[in-house]
Amino acid sequence: MASHEGFVLWFTGLSGAGKSTLANRLVQEFNVRGYKVELLDGDEVRTNLSKGLGFSKEDRDTNIRRIGWVARVLARNGVIAITAAISPYAEVRDEIRRQVEEEGRAKFVEAYAYAPLEALVERDVKGLYKKALAGEIANFTGVSDPYEAPEHPEFVACTAEESVETSAERLLAFLTEQGLINA
Amino acid sequence: MASHEGFVLWFTGLSGAGKSTLANRLVQEFNVRGYKVELLDGDEVRTNLSKGLGFSKEDRDTNIRRIGWVARVLARNGVIAITAAISPYAEVRDEIRRQVEEEGRAKFVEAYAYAPLEALVERDVKGLYKKALAGEIANFTGVSDPYEAPEHPEFVACTAEESVETSAERLLAFLTEQGLINA
Repeated sequence: MASHEGFVLWFTGLSGAGKSTLANRLVQEFNVRGYKVELLDGDEVRTNLSKGLGFSKEDRDTNIRRIGWVARVLARNGVIAITAAISPYAEVRDEIRRQVEEEGRAKFVEAYAYAPLEALVERDVKGLYKKALAGEIANFTGVSDPYEAPEHPEFVACTAEESVETSAERLLAFLTEQGLINA
Repeated sequence: MASHEGFVLWFTGLSGAGKSTLANRLVQEFNVRGYKVELLDGDEVRTNLSKGLGFSKEDRDTNIRRIGWVARVLARNGVIAITAAISPYAEVRDEIRRQVEEEGRAKFVEAYAYAPLEALVERDVKGLYKKALAGEIANFTGVSDPYEAPEHPEFVACTAEESVETSAERLLAFLTEQGLINA
């Protein structure tokens, strides 16, 4: 088994900002290296943790807390736990960070996938912004629901300006510099 | 780090049959050996996975499936994941076993903590059977709710007849024989 620490790599950002793309790029790299890595994102989380939850603040918070707990348990057992949920509320993200840090068995790295809303609306890969702006989707983060940007994230990927490859390289360099993964 | 495989050790059995006691005894032993072990039981699961769920069949199944998924993800990353929920329904236990086995990255060991109902009613450590028999607790497994005993568990602890120490020793011997832990 290749050498790395267990840590939580917590992506946050608006829909379409590139969280999952960057997360998947990292997973690919870590798999090549033979690292223990789990991506908590998409269908697996929706099926296994979030079924029955909606998009109210309470339900969103519950979802994020559950993901946070699973990520923490994985990380304290030496796994790289990557999450890629929008996770719009700073309070819940900070609560999870605090729990990880107080436990002291793993690091917490917040990675902000940032692109200006206008860029996301223009790109609109899934056509969701168009629907949200037309009022067809309620509680859509960034349009009809708040997004609280992280104040001190460990890493920011400016996805409107740099390629996935560049963001991934910068992030890998950061993780190496922090001693979380081998060069 | 000491040598062991990742596997799911799934305790099942009636309330008071000794699941948590035996599970905690194993955790203690694995901690001494420096193994990676997580016990999914009690408060941590209730707070982080099960909040809001009740005791209907549907809610119980959801709870068990969530625990099963977390256990599977841990085990496939080399952790010994021990669960100690009543998990009354054979179908859901077998579903989790199938998912673990089909994935092929970890073993699934079902451990049945068995004691005759009469012995549990007589012992009644938490006074729950008395209340359940008086009709004060609805959906109480074994009294007013079904318990489907495993047909082919890998291990049975006869907790009315043998001490925790004896059950633990037998179980450790079984796990060693299976090549899941070192002697």
